Amino acid sequence: MVKGTNGTRRNAATGEHYLPRHEPRYREIASFLRAPLADTLEALDIALVGIPFDGGVSNRPGTRHGPREIRNLSSMMRSAHHVTGLDPFAQARIADIGDVRFSSIFDLNKVSDDIAAYYAAIRKAGVIPLSAGGDHSITFPILRGLAADGPVGLIQIDAHTDTWDEFQGSKFHHGGPFRLACEQGLIDPKRTVQIGIRGAQNTTQGWDYSHETGMRVMFMEEVDAMGIDAVIAEARRVVGDGPVYLSFDIDSLDPAFAPGTGTPEVGGLTSLQALQLVRGFRDLPLIGADVVEVSPPFDPSGNTALIGATLMYELLCLMAERVENTKP
Amino acid sequence: MVKGTNGTRRNAATGEHYLPRHEPRYREIASFLRAPLADTLEALDIALVGIPFDGGVSNRPGTRHGPREIRNLSSMMRSAHHVTGLDPFAQARIADIGDVRFSSIFDLNKVSDDIAAYYAAIRKAGVIPLSAGGDHSITFPILRGLAADGPVGLIQIDAHTDTWDEFQGSKFHHGGPFRLACEQGLIDPKRTVQIGIRGAQNTTQGWDYSHETGMRVMFMEEVDAMGIDAVIAEARRVVGDGPVYLSFDIDSLDPAFAPGTGTPEVGGLTSLQALQLVRGFRDLPLIGADVVEVSPPFDPSGNTALIGATLMYELLCLMAERVENTKP
Amino acid sequence: MVKGTNGTRRNAATGEHYLPRHEPRYREIASFLRAPLADTLEALDIALVGIPFDGGVSNRPGTRHGPREIRNLSSMMRSAHHVTGLDPFAQARIADIGDVRFSSIFDLNKVSDDIAAYYAAIRKAGVIPLSAGGDHSITFPILRGLAADGPVGLIQIDAHTDTWDEFQGSKFHHGGPFRLACEQGLIDPKRTVQIGIRGAQNTTQGWDYSHETGMRVMFMEEVDAMGIDAVIAEARRVVGDGPVYLSFDIDSLDPAFAPGTGTPEVGGLTSLQALQLVRGFRDLPLIGADVVEVSPPFDPSGNTALIGATLMYELLCLMAERVENTKP
Amino acid sequence: MVKGTNGTRRNAATGEHYLPRHEPRYREIASFLRAPLADTLEALDIALVGIPFDGGVSNRPGTRHGPREIRNLSSMMRSAHHVTGLDPFAQARIADIGDVRFSSIFDLNKVSDDIAAYYAAIRKAGVIPLSAGGDHSITFPILRGLAADGPVGLIQIDAHTDTWDEFQGSKFHHGGPFRLACEQGLIDPKRTVQIGIRGAQNTTQGWDYSHETGMRVMFMEEVDAMGIDAVIAEARRVVGDGPVYLSFDIDSLDPAFAPGTGTPEVGGLTSLQALQLVRGFRDLPLIGADVVEVSPPFDPSGNTALIGATLMYELLCLMAERVENTKP
Amino acid sequence: MVKGTNGTRRNAATGEHYLPRHEPRYREIASFLRAPLADTLEALDIALVGIPFDGGVSNRPGTRHGPREIRNLSSMMRSAHHVTGLDPFAQARIADIGDVRFSSIFDLNKVSDDIAAYYAAIRKAGVIPLSAGGDHSITFPILRGLAADGPVGLIQIDAHTDTWDEFQGSKFHHGGPFRLACEQGLIDPKRTVQIGIRGAQNTTQGWDYSHETGMRVMFMEEVDAMGIDAVIAEARRVVGDGPVYLSFDIDSLDPAFAPGTGTPEVGGLTSLQALQLVRGFRDLPLIGADVVEVSPPFDPSGNTALIGATLMYELLCLMAERVENTKP
Amino acid sequence: MVKGTNGTRRNAATGEHYLPRHEPRYREIASFLRAPLADTLEALDIALVGIPFDGGVSNRPGTRHGPREIRNLSSMMRSAHHVTGLDPFAQARIADIGDVRFSSIFDLNKVSDDIAAYYAAIRKAGVIPLSAGGDHSITFPILRGLAADGPVGLIQIDAHTDTWDEFQGSKFHHGGPFRLACEQGLIDPKRTVQIGIRGAQNTTQGWDYSHETGMRVMFMEEVDAMGIDAVIAEARRVVGDGPVYLSFDIDSLDPAFAPGTGTPEVGGLTSLQALQLVRGFRDLPLIGADVVEVSPPFDPSGNTALIGATLMYELLCLMAERVENTKP
Repeated sequence: MVKGTNGTRRNAATGEHYLPRHEPRYREIASFLRAPLADTLEALDIALVGIPFDGGVSNRPGTRHGPREIRNLSSMMRSAHHVTGLDPFAQARIADIGDVRFSSIFDLNKVSDDIAAYYAAIRKAGVIPLSAGGDHSITFPILRGLAADGPVGLIQIDAHTDTWDEFQGSKFHHGGPFRLACEQGLIDPKRTVQIGIRGAQNTTQGWDYSHETGMRVMFMEEVDAMGIDAVIAEARRVVGDGPVYLSFDIDSLDPAFAPGTGTPEVGGLTSLQALQLVRGFRDLPLIGADVVEVSPPFDPSGNTALIGATLMYELLCLMAERVENTKP
Repeated sequence: MVKGTNGTRRNAATGEHYLPRHEPRYREIASFLRAPLADTLEALDIALVGIPFDGGVSNRPGTRHGPREIRNLSSMMRSAHHVTGLDPFAQARIADIGDVRFSSIFDLNKVSDDIAAYYAAIRKAGVIPLSAGGDHSITFPILRGLAADGPVGLIQIDAHTDTWDEFQGSKFHHGGPFRLACEQGLIDPKRTVQIGIRGAQNTTQGWDYSHETGMRVMFMEEVDAMGIDAVIAEARRVVGDGPVYLSFDIDSLDPAFAPGTGTPEVGGLTSLQALQLVRGFRDLPLIGADVVEVSPPFDPSGNTALIGATLMYELLCLMAERVENTKP
Repeated sequence: MVKGTNGTRRNAATGEHYLPRHEPRYREIASFLRAPLADTLEALDIALVGIPFDGGVSNRPGTRHGPREIRNLSSMMRSAHHVTGLDPFAQARIADIGDVRFSSIFDLNKVSDDIAAYYAAIRKAGVIPLSAGGDHSITFPILRGLAADGPVGLIQIDAHTDTWDEFQGSKFHHGGPFRLACEQGLIDPKRTVQIGIRGAQNTTQGWDYSHETGMRVMFMEEVDAMGIDAVIAEARRVVGDGPVYLSFDIDSLDPAFAPGTGTPEVGGLTSLQALQLVRGFRDLPLIGADVVEVSPPFDPSGNTALIGATLMYELLCLMAERVENTKP
Repeated sequence: MVKGTNGTRRNAATGEHYLPRHEPRYREIASFLRAPLADTLEALDIALVGIPFDGGVSNRPGTRHGPREIRNLSSMMRSAHHVTGLDPFAQARIADIGDVRFSSIFDLNKVSDDIAAYYAAIRKAGVIPLSAGGDHSITFPILRGLAADGPVGLIQIDAHTDTWDEFQGSKFHHGGPFRLACEQGLIDPKRTVQIGIRGAQNTTQGWDYSHETGMRVMFMEEVDAMGIDAVIAEARRVVGDGPVYLSFDIDSLDPAFAPGTGTPEVGGLTSLQALQLVRGFRDLPLIGADVVEVSPPFDPSGNTALIGATLMYELLCLMAERVENTKP
Repeated sequence: MVKGTNGTRRNAATGEHYLPRHEPRYREIASFLRAPLADTLEALDIALVGIPFDGGVSNRPGTRHGPREIRNLSSMMRSAHHVTGLDPFAQARIADIGDVRFSSIFDLNKVSDDIAAYYAAIRKAGVIPLSAGGDHSITFPILRGLAADGPVGLIQIDAHTDTWDEFQGSKFHHGGPFRLACEQGLIDPKRTVQIGIRGAQNTTQGWDYSHETGMRVMFMEEVDAMGIDAVIAEARRVVGDGPVYLSFDIDSLDPAFAPGTGTPEVGGLTSLQALQLVRGFRDLPLIGADVVEVSPPFDPSGNTALIGATLMYELLCLMAERVENTKP
Repeated sequence: MVKGTNGTRRNAATGEHYLPRHEPRYREIASFLRAPLADTLEALDIALVGIPFDGGVSNRPGTRHGPREIRNLSSMMRSAHHVTGLDPFAQARIADIGDVRFSSIFDLNKVSDDIAAYYAAIRKAGVIPLSAGGDHSITFPILRGLAADGPVGLIQIDAHTDTWDEFQGSKFHHGGPFRLACEQGLIDPKRTVQIGIRGAQNTTQGWDYSHETGMRVMFMEEVDAMGIDAVIAEARRVVGDGPVYLSFDIDSLDPAFAPGTGTPEVGGLTSLQALQLVRGFRDLPLIGADVVEVSPPFDPSGNTALIGATLMYELLCLMAERVENTKP
């Protein structure tokens, strides 16, 4: 696969070659951001991955259908960015490599191991993963796969700190990935920032854990009062220069913008704020990123999947620019 | 019912006792804010009440289904507030006491009398009511029941002043409750503030009445220009220190945030503004409050009922804190 | 609780007593079939139970929301049957006893044990359970609780035989409850009839198991060709006179009638056929019954939950009539 | 207005005249069956009328939006019938005369009087009305207006007999129009047939009244067993040769076919049966007909309004053929 | 038609005359903004026109249903503006003149010619058109009809510049109307402002064309940073004093506010910003305006059509005030 | 590609090979019937093709989204048929070869030529095409590509004969493909059967053409009266032994079963009848088949796409069995 030319497809009947990404948007097999499909990591800079798993939810299920529907709506995406003018497909070699495969969807430990092994392979191949969930529990095994060299920094955009402890007898659930990641030395709490937190909780356990370990928790009210530019500056200050992972939980957005999610919390980010926030992280050494908690069964207008696809595009732009800029 | 312990339930088969409010949110009978059900006012500080009546609407019906669906979505609510850290269930004795019962849904006068009698009983028991409508006509009979000692102050968050006169031969309709309340001495127009008003009208009658009687009308454009903090300050100035009632019409929110309502008006409050506004009224001597005009048949995503439930939670926090602070 | 008088409720504010079941249908707390809520099995003949669990699905989730939504739509139900004229509430003592509670929703074995223990308690109390799922995996632990005395007969109305073996490393999933039940001696395959089976499968394993163990499998084409009366006769012949359990999977209905389910199969029963079928089982010694696989997130019109509620009503009529007829 | 030529419209900008009914179906102002609008009864044989009233419902509201949405979906209708080949617009002079106007939507007696006066005027003009509701309460005042000369025959296609007595203090509600009509001598119970009746009831009062007064009640099970041809024959036998009114309640259809209604009852007519039934009444001396209980807020696919429009078309065919055949 | 009195209608049955615009909003034939229907341009100041055409879309279709559904939702509109207090129906003679008629919906050139001829006739009659689309391709032929005297100024509120060149072999499509208009001398690029532009594109061709021809392109990020008041000032500076056309593409709004459109772009205007923007153009010499790209099949809540109707009302207020102020 | 083994995929990260068709149904890239994707016709027996074109509709658009959504829902399909026990993937070499590509979606003639050329290439390769539309206009160019050797027989299951002449200036539209095909000698009217016809029409032109040319038109009423077995026998008699094409218009089904279509006609086939009908055509020498008129924007429950996918599966079974049986 060659940068800038990747993605042509052969018309089975006529033999002509063409670029599916430039076809009318209702045509073609739906892949993430209209990227080509690949069944190998070779010759790739960035891999788009789906993790159709929602076995870690505490409330509404449905995010197992997230990757499929984000792929569907990502047909709306195009290549050249209207702010930077840059085209990630011209900067890096990108493909949709399909979904993580599970040995048993009924066994949380195996799911965690399967995801961790998958991302370890991606990391080993020198490829940067951009993932679509699935519920937020998946970020823990992603980090198991990617952060083997020691704790990384974390930018978490979310309504919940997801640092709660055991729930219903399990520590592996969508309210706890960052506590697990912290306990296992995968993220550095001092280099962790949580943006957009809000919503009542039955206990303050999660907020307390974040504070006690030194994570920087930016509640929604603070975000709103500071403005997005200041939030970006603060987040960059927290994560510093080292490797960093970005996890975007769609429930950070207000339910008016993203109704299709399992634990919506009224009073969140607007979509414009979300885009501005992500765009603020250009040039960070991202080792990976994800967009999680898109739940199509609760998304009658499709807006949530559309926002999920748009955020993937914005994250891809960050990654591709970095790929180009760090090329030897 | 003892404060802080209220709400445990007995498992019918196993005999164990547990707190339904802490169960996974899709379980249990749906009550307002997951509060315990009660069939008495004894040992209560705050009563959650449904008024499933939409016989006063001039346009789309459906708010009769509001209490049911707000109960359903209020499963998403939890107890400890993310800004204050306070838990209303630890501060006051709270129960869902069911719905007001009507002797005839076809006779507006009887409906008004039934509601008035119901709230008079609540008031007599020394309980503070937090109600879910139903259309806005219901606030008039609520005030009949609660304001027997003379006019009270009013904070009305709404797209419409609801001070119109007779419509289709009746003064009791959802566009007129505050004119009726003013005419009958239940509210003091000088201590009345109306926030978020907007939308064209066939006549200026309602706006004129509000202005002529001395109500403080804050049109949406003024709200937007001032900012929520200034709006809160102005509203507190208007209502002063005396007893006050708060009525939250969901159509004050923009239809993007709350589509499920009978007379949506484009260009309204965001949900974050709405939450901030309500939180600005801590420590006011609320004699009651309501959330009205949630119409589930026009709410395909459920967002409107979710916002309704969230506003009830925020109002409950105001009330419970006051209960605790004013305890002898 | 006294038969025929059960279910009056006290108006919290006015003190009057009234029968919620006769109130306008949008009023009152939503319980199964508008039955009274109970937190004990004492003085009950029939218990209505919810099992909000969908951890056993192989495809679309969502049935965890089934009990809540069936309760909601069961407000549409009334008491006197239009064919028989009988009123189950006049024949038996009936209550909604809430939902089965789980020690961990993430551990399938614990879920199975929790359900089994719950139904063992119901059985011990001499009460007949009528349950709403949840996915079909739940019928296996229900039978663990109810069939301790030896295998029972089974009437299964379903698009799938649900006799598949291990899937994704587990035998406890919604495609296998009746294989498990058969293997563990909870049902007698010779007294088992499966009605409405259809839809392609990746392997013929399940159909083969049913045939090999001697279950009577009535594929949809046979059902359609025979007519419902003959199907009833055949089913009664198969189950004979002994104790029998009835399990109604909503996906036996055509998706036009019941779209809200996880594995819809085109070409199924009409709702009229379904009602006629159930009514054909009067006087059978039912030890319990369930309606499963109602998945509200895939049910935009609410029809599936409405049919679920209606089937519960029809099943309740069978049970209550039997209660009255077998009274000493 | 001349038969066969009626309905041309002038293009405001170009001055050309054309027939809106033959334009692409998404164009033009939505009128009933694409008929011309009229503000007079002169030169009309048949008037299409909307009655946007749902103040008589006992449960879900929404049928006030029925006429608007039936008009919208009736754009799908065309003129030449596929069974008879006849075109009603070529046989009779037909117009949409708009909606009945109410002096007060809050006063049931006035609503009844307004409707009665409206239909008395139509009758006086020698025009036959074909109406779209609205809830079923409206048929009583329609009959007040049309049956001034003495009781008429009635063909009622419905899930409910609608012969209940006072509900919530009123006899004028959508469960009682035919009891009122019978009591007031507007319909002859011996010439009344009720087809498709089903669904449990809280009391047997309505069924009893129908039976006691001699109405012919055909429960759904009987309809299904007899087949539509036999039902037609029986209905024609009951109503005989005299003037007859036909009232079609959309809830006679199974909710799979017509979900958008207030009191859906599972197990009803298919749409094909409904069409066959109506077509069976050619040549009857219809003095009017209505299609009621279409509730758009509960009709996400629009199918219910589409069926409502189709039934109006079929009824119009009956009326227009009779107009032509009885012409002097 | 006389200003201020226009729009009374005759009740067909009772003969009374009344103003439909003041009736309950679910009544009456749905016309734009409840204006009277007209089949002539005589005695009109402003004509409301529908253009049900979506043959120019590159992606999702559906805007052909826009005029019908905007008419439907425009029942929610009323007359007196809450900011200005002015009533356009008292200031100008206004009617809904129906939809443009096409000689062939399958031939883009004929469609363009039909629209151009229609608007040329409106212009010739001295009437100002306010139009509802339809996809954005229609603005090009509208301008062909209206700008015969030389290029006009343009205020375009849109997510896309719509200045792309040939797509799929045609220059007439919804991504190119303003390039065509510019090339044919219908608009003056120096007096053209494009507000709200955003979203990635496959090529920068359109943005480049706008910049190269001297159009003022205000990307969404600039709009957000400047604030609406400054945007208005800049737009007025650009268009100056000459005749100007205003084209409002509903996709300028964020999809949370207007999901029902063909090419939604996350991160757009709020509805309050949109209203404020339009209100900023009082007293401009508008020769016409349109609201385009409302696609009802993608609008489950109806909000998009509601916003479309509201924007038409706001634009009508601008036009009617100008009519009154410029009267000789 | 080898029969019976086709379709394994390589896991990009782990390198393992597996069969996507046997994975949980929410996983994997959505292809028709979970078949492998191919970009060549080599080594194929049957090609699954999408034709995302709706430029020929006379009413509601949206079928351009049909192939995408049928692919999505066809994840629900599995391999072994429950009636025959046969597995088409074990009988023939099958792949999804993507969508037909258009040189201009705005030029009907080019669209027709592109489709015709595409299918000519398929035919030349000796592959049998099974296609998903798109509107019904596409069947004409499909036949141009496939029937070059002279007229073929036609089984058309449809609510409309689609033998109308020019509409809006074009003969190429979705109401006319079979008139065009007949006029151009692509189908033999004497070997053409049209099943399920119904619904009023503005003129009888289409029905007349079918009758005059000798097509066998089976109106819905005849189908219902005869029963499906007799319909199959009659259809087989008509088409005889020669090559035959089968075209399934989803609007042949009643809108309760298939609401998502452009011109729904009340009173159609049930899904069970549709399946039985298709299964009746085993062993016919099908040269191709299509399922058309699935319009996802009008399909809120997804049922229409599900039925479309199921019909494709049933047709594939016919084709694969024939492939195996006719193998040299």
